[in-house]
Amino acid sequence: MSARGHVVALCGGVGGAKLAFGLARVLEPGRLSIVCNTGDDFEHLGLHVSPDIDTVTYTLVGLADAGRGWGLAGESWSFMDQLKRLGGEAWFNLGDRDLALHVERTRRMRAGETLTTVTAALSRALGVRHHLLPMSDQPVRTYVRTADGALPFQHYFVRERCEPKVEAVSFEGAASARPSPAVEALFARRDVAAVVVCPSNPYLSVDPILATPGLREGLAGLGAPVVAVSPLVGGRAIKGPTAKLMGELGIDPSTISIARHYRGLLDGLIIDRADAAQSEALEDEGVAALVTETVMLSDDDRIRLARETLAFAAKLAAVR
Amino acid sequence: MSARGHVVALCGGVGGAKLAFGLARVLEPGRLSIVCNTGDDFEHLGLHVSPDIDTVTYTLVGLADAGRGWGLAGESWSFMDQLKRLGGEAWFNLGDRDLALHVERTRRMRAGETLTTVTAALSRALGVRHHLLPMSDQPVRTYVRTADGALPFQHYFVRERCEPKVEAVSFEGAASARPSPAVEALFARRDVAAVVVCPSNPYLSVDPILATPGLREGLAGLGAPVVAVSPLVGGRAIKGPTAKLMGELGIDPSTISIARHYRGLLDGLIIDRADAAQSEALEDEGVAALVTETVMLSDDDRIRLARETLAFAAKLAAVR
Repeated sequence: MSARGHVVALCGGVGGAKLAFGLARVLEPGRLSIVCNTGDDFEHLGLHVSPDIDTVTYTLVGLADAGRGWGLAGESWSFMDQLKRLGGEAWFNLGDRDLALHVERTRRMRAGETLTTVTAALSRALGVRHHLLPMSDQPVRTYVRTADGALPFQHYFVRERCEPKVEAVSFEGAASARPSPAVEALFARRDVAAVVVCPSNPYLSVDPILATPGLREGLAGLGAPVVAVSPLVGGRAIKGPTAKLMGELGIDPSTISIARHYRGLLDGLIIDRADAAQSEALEDEGVAALVTETVMLSDDDRIRLARETLAFAAKLAAVR
Repeated sequence: MSARGHVVALCGGVGGAKLAFGLARVLEPGRLSIVCNTGDDFEHLGLHVSPDIDTVTYTLVGLADAGRGWGLAGESWSFMDQLKRLGGEAWFNLGDRDLALHVERTRRMRAGETLTTVTAALSRALGVRHHLLPMSDQPVRTYVRTADGALPFQHYFVRERCEPKVEAVSFEGAASARPSPAVEALFARRDVAAVVVCPSNPYLSVDPILATPGLREGLAGLGAPVVAVSPLVGGRAIKGPTAKLMGELGIDPSTISIARHYRGLLDGLIIDRADAAQSEALEDEGVAALVTETVMLSDDDRIRLARETLAFAAKLAAVR
């Protein structure tokens, strides 16, 4: 890829945020735009909570709690303690410090600002230097259909700990949403050198982005190679319900299924050494494969994988 | 007073809350209703904050920070730290634990509950056993007029630290407000033995209560003696801007002025030993005076003053 090209990354929460962190370490602030899933957003206790935007924000500036996988490191819980005492809804934990982000976001949005503007201001205040863009300023809400009816995503993910069997996934509001103006502005750029689909859950975290009308077409129209990092390692997800969900939806939890899921969009898929045997079958699907170590345990892992991802995209661009 | 009579107390914040604490220690839960000022209520960071209700709540259950005069003892400030970092409005401090009360109150009110219902539920959850009643479920908002224009009460009181010279006090919304149904129900009682005006600021904390249409008449219609505890000691307020404000409004900061302010409502005024010399002049105003120690430094002080207040009211009832 061009040494001056722009990179667009599609990102959900934890797994995706790790690669976004690596990309942000490798690319100058003006060279990376992270388009973030907002399908997990929800109103809780009257506050607008954006779990994926927050995870990416905290991860990019090194404030995320790595062990827990969400929220801030070194957080305190006085608010939740008292909320429980008051009989409030306590299934979704909000740390004292984290809470400031939700209160301030909600206040600014009620005052008429868009999620994009608020995200830019608040992420910058916390030290994020790269562009962090909600996929849309309109509400798109992920629901999972279970035997007990449709559940909003956080109810399924947090309250029910991903236990209900999922029959289908839907994105309420997607049909009438559009990409945020900042995301649409990306589509007009002539210098995008790569689109990176971060290793987030394809069905729950990346699909809401791609379901936003015009977004998939906008990405395809960039003419840049699209490469994804598989969230599966040896048929399992490193974190989260990807493999369980694929099984419930009747999809074989393999990198082949991931490639097929992104069919028509994807040029290359980066898979783990544990899945090296699927490399040839991926090429048969028309998707270039890069085999490497995809588990990111350290900052160095994240940076290395980001470099490999960008080099892979550059190689795909060169052979076009 | 009757050993079974009900007591209605009118109360603002800190000073008033101390006597309310004493009354709650002396009277069984079913025998005391505290009608609380909501003129200080305001929307802050999108949250409904009720400073006087909260101070009374925390004081009644022994959780109030005595030194600071507001909020909870042993509070933590992670939320405020982070809010400042995010560039949010930081002039009004909200502790991490305190915040739960505002978030839960706001959530329940947005869901359609009245301030009365929410106050009952949340104060009970924190251990309050007596009836704590907002004066009204409609918004009444205290404004002070200054040379720089009208200031909402908390802006004057907290942000400007009571520094601007006050030209007038007004209660926006009072004309169209009415006492809460729970307060109106008090007016129908036949067993009210005393009305106690707690030592809160008459102009800023008690007047909004009395400005609520029908409330003054309702109290008068009870036929019970009305006794107040003067918030002034030797021409000064123990805490807060009462004396400064009286001076700015051209009122002599004396217990006589307090008695005149409550003219037509008040039967007796309890004054401090420091003001004993004004006792006779008060009688000339048609108000019975009781001289005692009104500064409440300990729980014992509060309980003693509560007992003296109730005995004084009983004496006034007997001579009617």
